[in-house]
Amino acid sequence: MSTTDTIAAIATPPGEGGVGIVRVSGSNVWKIADEVFQSLETPSAASGGTFLHGKVVDVSGTEIDEALCLIFRAPRSYTGEDTVEIQGHGGAVVLKKILRRCLEAGARMAEPGEFTQRAFLNGKMDLVQAEAVADLIHARSDRAAKAALEQLEGSLSGQFNTLYDQLVDIAADLETTLDFVEDELPDSVFPTLEKKLDQSVRALEALLSTWDEGCLLREGARVVIMGRPNAGKSTLFNALLGHDRAIVTQFAGTTRDVIEEGLVLDGIPLRILDTAGLREAECEIEREGIRRAREHAGTADIAIYLVDCSLPFSVEDAEHLEKLDPARSVVVLNKSDSRNPDFQFLMSSFHPLETSLLNDRGIAEVKTAIATKLETGVDLRAPVHAVISERHRNLLELSHAELVRAREQLTGLEDEGVALAAEHVRSALENLGQVTGRIYHDELLDNIFSRFCIGK
Amino acid sequence: MSTTDTIAAIATPPGEGGVGIVRVSGSNVWKIADEVFQSLETPSAASGGTFLHGKVVDVSGTEIDEALCLIFRAPRSYTGEDTVEIQGHGGAVVLKKILRRCLEAGARMAEPGEFTQRAFLNGKMDLVQAEAVADLIHARSDRAAKAALEQLEGSLSGQFNTLYDQLVDIAADLETTLDFVEDELPDSVFPTLEKKLDQSVRALEALLSTWDEGCLLREGARVVIMGRPNAGKSTLFNALLGHDRAIVTQFAGTTRDVIEEGLVLDGIPLRILDTAGLREAECEIEREGIRRAREHAGTADIAIYLVDCSLPFSVEDAEHLEKLDPARSVVVLNKSDSRNPDFQFLMSSFHPLETSLLNDRGIAEVKTAIATKLETGVDLRAPVHAVISERHRNLLELSHAELVRAREQLTGLEDEGVALAAEHVRSALENLGQVTGRIYHDELLDNIFSRFCIGK
Repeated sequence: MSTTDTIAAIATPPGEGGVGIVRVSGSNVWKIADEVFQSLETPSAASGGTFLHGKVVDVSGTEIDEALCLIFRAPRSYTGEDTVEIQGHGGAVVLKKILRRCLEAGARMAEPGEFTQRAFLNGKMDLVQAEAVADLIHARSDRAAKAALEQLEGSLSGQFNTLYDQLVDIAADLETTLDFVEDELPDSVFPTLEKKLDQSVRALEALLSTWDEGCLLREGARVVIMGRPNAGKSTLFNALLGHDRAIVTQFAGTTRDVIEEGLVLDGIPLRILDTAGLREAECEIEREGIRRAREHAGTADIAIYLVDCSLPFSVEDAEHLEKLDPARSVVVLNKSDSRNPDFQFLMSSFHPLETSLLNDRGIAEVKTAIATKLETGVDLRAPVHAVISERHRNLLELSHAELVRAREQLTGLEDEGVALAAEHVRSALENLGQVTGRIYHDELLDNIFSRFCIGK
Repeated sequence: MSTTDTIAAIATPPGEGGVGIVRVSGSNVWKIADEVFQSLETPSAASGGTFLHGKVVDVSGTEIDEALCLIFRAPRSYTGEDTVEIQGHGGAVVLKKILRRCLEAGARMAEPGEFTQRAFLNGKMDLVQAEAVADLIHARSDRAAKAALEQLEGSLSGQFNTLYDQLVDIAADLETTLDFVEDELPDSVFPTLEKKLDQSVRALEALLSTWDEGCLLREGARVVIMGRPNAGKSTLFNALLGHDRAIVTQFAGTTRDVIEEGLVLDGIPLRILDTAGLREAECEIEREGIRRAREHAGTADIAIYLVDCSLPFSVEDAEHLEKLDPARSVVVLNKSDSRNPDFQFLMSSFHPLETSLLNDRGIAEVKTAIATKLETGVDLRAPVHAVISERHRNLLELSHAELVRAREQLTGLEDEGVALAAEHVRSALENLGQVTGRIYHDELLDNIFSRFCIGK
């Protein structure tokens, strides 16, 4: 990607709404805006911080839409470049036409996240803040939005920067000692450096510990409903959603296609999947459904396993349950209103809930159990704070490993220990520097910005 | 609804995008904006046509989002009132928080279409143009968007207004003649009036004739895929969509839940429904699926009926086909590569296509057949022009009936004929006036604006 050509994209969400925006940024923006947008004043002549009323026209001068044109003069724009935002009516078709017109007039379609990438390259924000923009957009709960905003405001960047500066100091100190013979150094030098290194390691570990919460807030959780046919899976699915999404009958094997819907529970976004009942199906369609069910179960964060307790406890249920991790499973004994006198739940590691879903008994308890399982190890009642992402974690773990090795070298008191320790700290810095983008390369930027939506 | 209180709503489409907008309009907007939005300059002090960089804060001053605030001073705004648009990050959660903050600060949640309703009440547009705003947003094809824009620009309103003015003239002329005894009037008076009335009737009819196209462009079409089990319905469904949406097997009765997806064909938006195969199912689930299939077939614009021609033609197919209207049905003989020598298609009123869907043969022909059926009576290749809506049609038909009666009265030469004709023309005017909103009442406005999205 070049940073001087002019890019354009639809910046509002897809779909129908009152207003939609096409954003255009780059060195050629005024020529394009003047060609595309007709108004009493031309965009190129207008001041930054103002907007014009007018219309978007095609090459022949025919109107495409009534619109506003917002004028941003560099560096006072999101990207730091000259930018216009054309605000048209919110329909998908009209917006696409406005975008196409801008492309005709010389803009290039923006890559995902390219506006934010330019903001980064122009020094408007660091990589951690840039990522927060995407997190803020993707946030599916209040808590996730707050954490993203803290990150955007720089609270996480601040911690990374402090840590980075500490490590730079340590590396410099280590390298300085190399210029001296050992006897010339005060006794306190290495213990002091070890202590500093130790503090940095702990600071890193504190940052790493926010990962679980970060993951939950960003990614949400996949909850798959499993069980033998006719245990009440689709009934539970409909009850959790609060509407009649899946066909429910008294017959085993009703559901085949996997059905998926979204839900927010206790600030945690969920995807709930209803699946085909697990049995040795004779029917190939059902077998395909069951194969898909097992596949989804493997990638789920939580499995809800329904057991029909109006029947005696079955070997099949025991076999399916044995494959599940009790820490990530909620077992539900359904139809407890007509519980079979011979029913005995034999899997003591699970703590099953009893429900009678057709009588609306036990739904709230199932919801609570899901939320509790998801929050294990994460205190969602603590004050909101910025939390690290997968990318941060990977780099921090590399840094952490290097710092631990540096500490070993220092305490080992080997001859080349100090030189090696200094080298490990430098490696730690290289990884840490990639978190905020003090150090970056094209591949790193591609990885980060490709997960953005187009138009941001 | 009061037109002086201050309303607020999210104006961008729901979902994720780079930018989202909360629009606030009404007499109290400056107090609210000053409270909610912090910047170097206060919104109340800023000039219309400018925007401020700043942040949205909650009651305690904590930041909710970084944002822009666009300043619109009455009457230079969409509604004609003082308005601000707060542009925040495009995430759904963040936007809801900004909206909630505006409501806390004294705004009221806007009703659907309430901003546009205010634009109408403040004389910024007539009802036909207001409706065009919604059409433009909902437009699902290029052609629909162009027709809506023509309507927004006033081309349809112009035709209604011309017609209205003609009828006002005719009514006035008719009433004038009542002041004279018959002998005093020139012979040409009534023939001239009749001719004028005739022209108006024809103008009305021309407008009414655009209804078919308008309906197709606005509503799109529902296409339901039907047929006996295992005829290839889900294969056709997937092939039309171009991806593997429904489970397909070689077994009859695979699909049960009705599956629905969207598609644009030749500028016409379609909803395509895949349904359970029609048979006397023993299984209650499948019977429910078949019941739902029949229900959808009843409301569809086009039925695609698949026949498996690798088997002899069946009585059941004949029975199902008999219930279908050939003009609204596309019959497909699938599996023609292994056509049964005994297969003979006996329903001559249908002109079936032959396909071999598993071998990708015939998909294009099916698409063409759907498009052709939909365009019957509508020339989608003619230049784009504004087309009337259901509401317009209902009022125009009432007007038309009145004008036809007026003409009868005139030609009948009854004694009270002229007075009655004048009355009928007045009634026609009353209906016609409601089209553009020269005449309106609360219920009419509610009907129109309730179909808008919130935020428009």
